[in-house]
Amino acid sequence: MAADLYPPDQLFEFTVRVFRHFDVPADDARTAATVLQSADLRGIDSHGVARLHTYFDMLDLGRINPKAQVSIVRESASTATVDGGNGLGLVVGPKANEIAMEKALAAGSGWVSVRNTNHYGIAGWYVLEALKRGLIGWSMTNTTRLVAPLWGAERMLGTNPIAIAFPGAEEPPIVIDMATCTAAYGKIEMARRAGSQIPLGWAADRNGVPTTDPNAMIDGGALLPLGSDREGGGHKGYALAVMVDVLSALLSGANWGPFVPPFALRQEMPTRSVGKGIGHFLGALRIDAFIDPDEFKKQIDDMVRTLRRTRPAPGTEGPLIPGDPEREAESVRGRDGIPLTQPVVEELLDISRRTGIPLEKRR
Amino acid sequence: MAADLYPPDQLFEFTVRVFRHFDVPADDARTAATVLQSADLRGIDSHGVARLHTYFDMLDLGRINPKAQVSIVRESASTATVDGGNGLGLVVGPKANEIAMEKALAAGSGWVSVRNTNHYGIAGWYVLEALKRGLIGWSMTNTTRLVAPLWGAERMLGTNPIAIAFPGAEEPPIVIDMATCTAAYGKIEMARRAGSQIPLGWAADRNGVPTTDPNAMIDGGALLPLGSDREGGGHKGYALAVMVDVLSALLSGANWGPFVPPFALRQEMPTRSVGKGIGHFLGALRIDAFIDPDEFKKQIDDMVRTLRRTRPAPGTEGPLIPGDPEREAESVRGRDGIPLTQPVVEELLDISRRTGIPLEKRR
Repeated sequence: MAADLYPPDQLFEFTVRVFRHFDVPADDARTAATVLQSADLRGIDSHGVARLHTYFDMLDLGRINPKAQVSIVRESASTATVDGGNGLGLVVGPKANEIAMEKALAAGSGWVSVRNTNHYGIAGWYVLEALKRGLIGWSMTNTTRLVAPLWGAERMLGTNPIAIAFPGAEEPPIVIDMATCTAAYGKIEMARRAGSQIPLGWAADRNGVPTTDPNAMIDGGALLPLGSDREGGGHKGYALAVMVDVLSALLSGANWGPFVPPFALRQEMPTRSVGKGIGHFLGALRIDAFIDPDEFKKQIDDMVRTLRRTRPAPGTEGPLIPGDPEREAESVRGRDGIPLTQPVVEELLDISRRTGIPLEKRR
Repeated sequence: MAADLYPPDQLFEFTVRVFRHFDVPADDARTAATVLQSADLRGIDSHGVARLHTYFDMLDLGRINPKAQVSIVRESASTATVDGGNGLGLVVGPKANEIAMEKALAAGSGWVSVRNTNHYGIAGWYVLEALKRGLIGWSMTNTTRLVAPLWGAERMLGTNPIAIAFPGAEEPPIVIDMATCTAAYGKIEMARRAGSQIPLGWAADRNGVPTTDPNAMIDGGALLPLGSDREGGGHKGYALAVMVDVLSALLSGANWGPFVPPFALRQEMPTRSVGKGIGHFLGALRIDAFIDPDEFKKQIDDMVRTLRRTRPAPGTEGPLIPGDPEREAESVRGRDGIPLTQPVVEELLDISRRTGIPLEKRR
């Protein structure tokens, strides 16, 4: 799809002003814009300003508290449960991440389960923050239901991502950031817009039958868990999604599974509430609590180089290192700008019209 | 394949006596036999007494220290690095797990990375131990290379399992125990013995080409990571295997990736050593460090019941809960006995002949 390039800093300022329009405190607005910008820079287009209109709608309708206070409701030396006060996940998540990192600095590791929060952007942003402090960061969140359990015919779980990152010395870090379903919902939408089929194994229709028709998934069908079917190990992707849900929501007191509240206005409301908001799980490990950090980073370098030297499978250039594609995107987009499709630009222009905040169109 | 049923307690006593034959201390021998028995009872046949001859060989050749001391080489309030002294993983793993659980009781969570150890049995045993103390247990280990990274044509990573368990109140616990490859090596061997094909997506041949021939995998080919190929999300299974390897080995100072030492005698030796032995990563979370445990367990019950009520996909009876198949096996085998195939029985009889320890053949 044709896309215009927008300078990252201009999109950032626009985003900050949109959050400020709803009286989100200045620091919080900048944090939220930073998380969204990170998605756009790293090529995860579905999680950047493409979502700004949804945040706009939720704030406009009072569904999210722009000035929420984050509070610790229970804690131990290495753990905490945080209540996000129904604030922006883009603000609550980073604050909970700070708590996890502070706990790690004091106790070797820190683990924070978060309730009463909203979508927190890309899981990977949180672990990149931990990397800046020399920590191993973990990040998980549950999300609105989209995925069928193996042998299920309906959406019961979110795409429930897991992120974790490990620093190298001379090599770039290993950065893992993956949804626990086979393919992202954004890929289904892209296929629909392009009028093309999707591979078998990505989705099922409303009857639970595997489908290659993106519309059949979107119209009441479901994504499939990583592994897709029994032979492919679909029970494993399903189990990982359950793990993320329990750590994020049952441990904090948030909604889980099919009861996670919708992120976008057009999504259906859950049949009941079993907790508060959605849930995240954020963790940090201090490397020197286990091993000399320089030795660890040297070994990461060695592992990265060893994996890159793997004999390539036919038709490929050999294995990538987790995080390579995002780092490549960040390099290109930081230089050339962020490509926005026309529908996303239209959404931003709609926000601009309704708030009076100008959207710069070109560098 | 035809199988004879053996009473669990007689196999247990045989196993204890085999370890005692090599002067493994009595308590350690019973622990090791308990871990192996758990695999046999839970239906994970590849990890039970089917492996006893391999342990026998390794002990017989002095490759494993039967009287190893486990020592903490670095620690913080919530973490530790443990050196297993090249002991049995079936003994080192449980001791490291104890340390993780003690740390959790004191600091809310406990995380132990282990080096200089050997294969530790089923990952699930460790998290079941944590359940007994009311803790959420985590367990990972790296293993001898068998799996190709996505776009790789050779074995570079182990099957690197992840286990985690969550207790319910009235419902049985959710117990996740999964290798990070699509299918277990044991399934490839079963297909070879049966002379049947394997599904596309499980394995590649020695040139990195996906294959349905089990011999092509066994003869220098590789297992494929969970997700199998790029479209199926094979980069995610690969990333999970890397995650397990880093936490288990790079954080502890063990060997990783293609340098993990072989478990069985017939396996090739790695080209170099990058650490000590293999590595495990064991963790525990205290539930009451996050939320009231009764409330948590009630929510787990609700989640289990909710997932069981999922509308079934055509041709299925609906989703299972992770841990269902193993619990079912445990119930049947605890009553009827453990089925051993003739090759496994032959191996046990060989041990019996060489040690003079009688193997009871029937209930």
